[in-house]
Order: sequence, then structure tokens, then C-alpha cells
Amino acid sequence: MRSTHAPIEDLAIFGRPPLFAKGLPTGQLDAPNIEAFIEKLRSIFDKKSFSNGGPLVRALEERLCELHQVVNCIAVANAALGLTMLLQTLAGHRRGEVLVPAMGYRGLPHFAKWAGQSPRFVDVDEETHTLAPSAVEGAMRVETSCILAISGFNTPGFLAELDAVSARKGVPIIYDSVDSVASTYLGRPLGGFGRAEVFSLHATKLINGFEGGYITTRDDELARILRRQLDFNHPGALDRPDDPAAHVLGLNGKLNEIHAAMALLSLDRLAGVIERNKQRFERYAAGLAEIAGVRLFPYSGTETEIRNYRMVVIEILPDWPLTRDETVRLMKAEGAGVRAYFNPPLFELEPWVRETPAGSWPVTRALTERFLHLPTGELVSDRDIDLLIELLGWVGRHGAEIKSRLRGEPNKHWRGNGPTP
Amino acid sequence: MRSTHAPIEDLAIFGRPPLFAKGLPTGQLDAPNIEAFIEKLRSIFDKKSFSNGGPLVRALEERLCELHQVVNCIAVANAALGLTMLLQTLAGHRRGEVLVPAMGYRGLPHFAKWAGQSPRFVDVDEETHTLAPSAVEGAMRVETSCILAISGFNTPGFLAELDAVSARKGVPIIYDSVDSVASTYLGRPLGGFGRAEVFSLHATKLINGFEGGYITTRDDELARILRRQLDFNHPGALDRPDDPAAHVLGLNGKLNEIHAAMALLSLDRLAGVIERNKQRFERYAAGLAEIAGVRLFPYSGTETEIRNYRMVVIEILPDWPLTRDETVRLMKAEGAGVRAYFNPPLFELEPWVRETPAGSWPVTRALTERFLHLPTGELVSDRDIDLLIELLGWVGRHGAEIKSRLRGEPNKHWRGNGPTP
Repeated sequence: MRSTHAPIEDLAIFGRPPLFAKGLPTGQLDAPNIEAFIEKLRSIFDKKSFSNGGPLVRALEERLCELHQVVNCIAVANAALGLTMLLQTLAGHRRGEVLVPAMGYRGLPHFAKWAGQSPRFVDVDEETHTLAPSAVEGAMRVETSCILAISGFNTPGFLAELDAVSARKGVPIIYDSVDSVASTYLGRPLGGFGRAEVFSLHATKLINGFEGGYITTRDDELARILRRQLDFNHPGALDRPDDPAAHVLGLNGKLNEIHAAMALLSLDRLAGVIERNKQRFERYAAGLAEIAGVRLFPYSGTETEIRNYRMVVIEILPDWPLTRDETVRLMKAEGAGVRAYFNPPLFELEPWVRETPAGSWPVTRALTERFLHLPTGELVSDRDIDLLIELLGWVGRHGAEIKSRLRGEPNKHWRGNGPTP
Repeated sequence: MRSTHAPIEDLAIFGRPPLFAKGLPTGQLDAPNIEAFIEKLRSIFDKKSFSNGGPLVRALEERLCELHQVVNCIAVANAALGLTMLLQTLAGHRRGEVLVPAMGYRGLPHFAKWAGQSPRFVDVDEETHTLAPSAVEGAMRVETSCILAISGFNTPGFLAELDAVSARKGVPIIYDSVDSVASTYLGRPLGGFGRAEVFSLHATKLINGFEGGYITTRDDELARILRRQLDFNHPGALDRPDDPAAHVLGLNGKLNEIHAAMALLSLDRLAGVIERNKQRFERYAAGLAEIAGVRLFPYSGTETEIRNYRMVVIEILPDWPLTRDETVRLMKAEGAGVRAYFNPPLFELEPWVRETPAGSWPVTRALTERFLHLPTGELVSDRDIDLLIELLGWVGRHGAEIKSRLRGEPNKHWRGNGPTP
């Protein structure tokens, strides 16, 4: 392995081989023992129950109800479809607006649009990066059909305050809780807040079902409607024309047995996954404490609440020599699956930049330029973390030279023996 | 096993145990050898490439391009999502109408609605049960954004004529070709007609990927846009703001590696599956020829074209003693997974019955009362088929008695020793 004390032209961004030849991901990518999975697979093949309404999907839904301490869990093909189904069903046949965090996942405004709604972007809170209740209240209009909040990875956010705004205004709120699975809020597991919450079973998440997702809700009637929605609006045995479920917009949102088999085994591993995530996070914390110019984004309330330590996000401070985007490029070139955190802000993307009402999102604007994800998950070793910290420290110390070279400026610091820039 | 010569009170619909205790499905439910699947599974676990953009999905797409003799194949999470994506993309940001067969799958008008369009139902041809080109031309209006045709299971339908209407009117046509996979039209495999075609990988279909689907198209630009659409509208390496792909409405429509592994092995079995389907179909044909009042719906053009023999559908003729729905109830009670074929007509369902323009669909109205699916696929044996034929024959001969008992009429024929009706 290349020494990280080499001259700067040894950086991969200047053409040399990357530090991590195989690449370091940011996804969880935990998998159960393959022999245990094969055992479940044999039961699927024996029963020839491959897809709809099979016993493993039912068993998974029950296990997830226990995890989230909620009475309804509906497995879906993926979390994006779960969010889209909820936005459409809660808006009914009305065309309205969904309040969406301005700093969030690229898909969110698309899901609102599929549901026949327009997205309206709302600023986030500076400290937690989750929807600011006061901004939500300020953005509320007669057109508002739903609030789509994100539960943050390191803190669920202002659940009580947001649920209160929703109740006071009579506008439903749902949570994209993909990043906060297994987290608690005032000691209560996520899953039972708002009208519904949505979680993911994608391989890069905490619970690996290859792909997939699920909706949790305390609302039995909503659960019944969603079950009909995800099966093409097929009626159950009885169908009354005045039943609101008969009018739901149907699609194929079903999860199948093979995903459920994987997710069930992954659930057994959850405590171990979180423990290993925490060890990686703490290793990063110890190393990064020595490096000026970067700050590890902390997990909140860890004395009393459960956190999943799923992500490692750092903030680039003003005294760091490179911009966040330069840092991402440099580290990506080294094979580290580093990426900007919730950037660009959603209101800058096509087609929203032209379609949605103008607004003011000062917190989002400032935050989206400063954060990045570092590699973590099962494929990242302690040695990888040490090398990444060493690399960041070295970049910090040689920042002026790297910056000049990156920006194509005449470089008075640079003394390399590579081709002259 | 119960004799089918028993008195009529021995029928399961009158409370006795069913003829087929385990149930007989109508789905294909073919599966590869589990050991072959486990081998592919080990490669997935070894590579930890569980989900997006993995090597097996790419290999599957290539194999399907060969099967359909088409240059673009895009694997998707399921066929319903594939149709929805196409309808949305082809309509752009315009709100229009999609022409949909009045006799078709329950989901079709829902997919149009998700795509921001209204469904408009068009009558089918009496002989083929596929969209009648003249009816399509008659229904075409300035609002028409797309034609969504179904390729029939026993004949693809009027592909040349429909493609010609589409070209003449400048309105794109897409085909739901789920039921006609591996079929040919004038010797050419399905897959390259219209702007795109959509196929399924659901376990009940010819190619079993547990679940899943794919889109085929000759249109490279459409394929590029769809690939971006199914990955949340994430850009590739380069993104120009004037690129139409940047404006596509994104979702999670990705297929993952585990489905691709299954479908690849299933593809190897396709010829055998079709051969066994044909044998079952011919066994039904020989037996049903002896029974007055029912007619087997034939496969067309079998001298020169390839057909998949995936389904066994019969028509209830006027001299059959029971209605189609009574026949379905009676056979379902016996554990035979019989079901009505494309019924009710789509224009009779909520919410379309009130939302869509009134129309006249005489052919659909007549056809949807007369046809039913009989069990077939890998879980249906020759002995099962013989029993089903014997049962149908017996029902035909004792029709008057059964009808009276079913309809609760005083029954002068009935001489049972069960409880008096």
C-alpha cells in the first residue's frame, strides 16, 4: 500500500493508482450466513410459493411490528413506492402541495409529483438538519395535502412538534424514516409517529432484504387501504362500492418471498450490525479529533436514546484548505466512496428550479455545501478507517499545495517530479 | 379421490370436500433446479453485489435482447412499473388520455392515472379479443397521449395495423406483451413493436424471476431516459440542463441481482416450459372436444408462428346449463383455481364507472361474460386435467339439477340424501 506521506503528485486525483483499489462503499452491506439463507430458500422452492402473500412476507411483517412496537406493517417493493403510495392515498383525488425538506433525498419531490401533488420545499433546522417546525407552520397553505418529513440518521428530529403542527392544522404528516431505523424518540422506537412511517430493506441499509421496504402505521383503516393499493386495487372477498378502499389508485407494490427470507435473517443480526457501526464511528471520532478543519457530525441523545450509527458524516469547516466538492473528488479518486451529503439542495434541481414557488432556504443553502459522507459499513475495516484518517490529515497539512494544483494555478509550493501541471 | 359420477350433493359447492384438496393454480410456477440457483446465489454473496447495476442484471438484459431480437432491454422491478414509467415519459408533462382496451387487466387504467393521464376505454375485436384498430382510430382525440395495447396470449393482435394508426396520428403506442412472451408476429419475435413493449418476470409467468419485469424498445434515446427514470432521476456522469432525461419523473424501478439470477436460469428452461404447456393444452383440447356447451379458445397461426400455450381459456356457449360465473364458483369450490377471464369490463369498475367518458363497448360487454381460465402450468398434472374434464362433462350432463340447486329453486330432479335445500 502506498504511503500517505508521499509527495502530493502521488494522489490518485493527479493520476496515480488509488489508495483503495477495490473501492470503499458507504452502504451497510451486511449479509446473513449464506447457508441460513439457503435453508429458507429451500422452503420457498418446496412450497412453490415464490411471490404474493407468502408465509415469509407475513412473518417479516410480524417481526417488524415487534421491532417498531406498532400494530400495522405493510411490506412493499421498495421505500420509494411506499412513500408514493402514502402521498397519493392521503391526498385522495385532490391536487395539492406536499411540504418536503429542501435538504433531502433527490427522490422526494418526484414521489410527490407521481402522487399528483406539487412539492413545496421547506427549510431545515441548523443543528439537526431535519424539518424545522416553525418553517413547516409558515409554509402551510390551503393547498397543503401532506407533510413529508425525514427522520434524520443521527436524530429523528422534532417529532412531537411536527406531529402537533399536523394535528393543529389537520394536515397529515408522514416520515421517511429510512435512515433512523431502530432509533428511539423519548425512548419509544420510531415507527408509530405521524400517520405512517416508511423504512427501507435495501442492501445498503441496516436491514438487508436485497431490496424492499415497509410502511408502519397505527391506523388500521389506512393499512387496509394500502394493502389493496399495492395489489393493483384488487378487492378482497367482499367489495362495497362505498368502500374508500375501492377507489384507491392501484399499482404493483408487493414484496416477494425471497426478499422477506433475506430480511428475516438480517433482522436477527441487527444488534451486531449496530454495535459494529458504533465501533467504526468511534474509531473515526478518535482519529478525526486530531484533524483541524473537519468536524464529525455527532449522534444526539446517546445517553438515553438508541442510535444506529449507520452513517459517518463530516462537516468541512472554514479553516479546511479545500472546498467540500474538492475534498469529495480527491477522496473518490482514491477509491473511497465519499459523497456529498444531501446536495445539491432540492430546489436547485430540474424541473423544480423552474416549477416550484420561489422561497428562502438560508439554512439549507449553507448546510448543503459543507457536509460529506465517509465510507462505513461491513466492507470497511479498521485499517481502512485509519488510512482514511491518515489521508485526511495529510491533505489538511498539504492543503495549499493540493489546492493550487487542483485549481491549475502556478504552484510555488509544488516540488514534484511528475509532469508539470 | 371422490368419483365424479357421484350424485350432485357430492359437489364441493354443496359442502363436500373439494376434488383437489391442495388447489390447482393457473400460474406457470416453473422453477429452475435449486442447486443451480444456489450457485448463482453464492456469486452474489461473494461479490456483495446485491442490488443496483449488478452483473447479473446486465447479463439478463443481454439475454432478453437476444430473445426478443431488439437492441434495448431495461430490467424493471415489475411490469406494472414499466408500463407506468412509459406512459408518464411518453406523455411528458402534458395531461392527456391513454387509450386502453375495455377488456383488459384491472391495473391498466390505474397505471394511466399514475402517469397523470385519464384512461379512455376502447372496444376489442370479437375474434382476437385485442384492441380493434378501427375502434382505436375512432377513439383518437386531440387529448390522446398514448395507446396502451395488450398483446393477446393466443395471438399478438393487429400489430401492423395498430403501429400504422400510431404513425399516421403521431401518437405513440406501447404494448403490454406480458402474455405473449416468446410469441412471434409474421415470424418476428415480439419485443420490437410500437415505441416499446413490456414483459413480466413474475413467478406465474413464462420466465420466473420470482417477480420483476422488463421493457424492450428499438429507441435508444427512450431507453436512456428510462434508465435514468428508474433510478430516481439520478444523473450519469454528465448532466446538461437541456437534456430531456434530466426532466424525467424519477422513481425506484430497479430490478436487483437475486431476481436476475432466477430469471437467467428460467430463460434456459423456456423451450421445455412451452413444450409442456403445449402438451397440457392439447390434452385439454382432446377432452373438451367431447363436451357440448364449452369451447376451447384456440391459439392462432400455429402453423407458422410460435405460441407459448401459457393459458387455457374456455368459452361458455349458450347451450351450457350454467352461467360462466356459476361455473367458476362450482369449480373454485373443488379447489381448481378457475377464474373469469378479463371480467368485469374495466369501464364497470370504480372509479372509472363514474370518471371516464361514456362509450359503447358491445364486443367487450358480450365477451366478458363468456370466458374462464382453466388450471394449467407446472403444478397441474395430466391426471388433474383428466379429472377436470371429467368434472366438466359431468356438470354438463347434470346441469339442470345443479342449476336448480344453486339457484335455490324447488328441485324436481334432485334425489340427494343431504340436507334438503
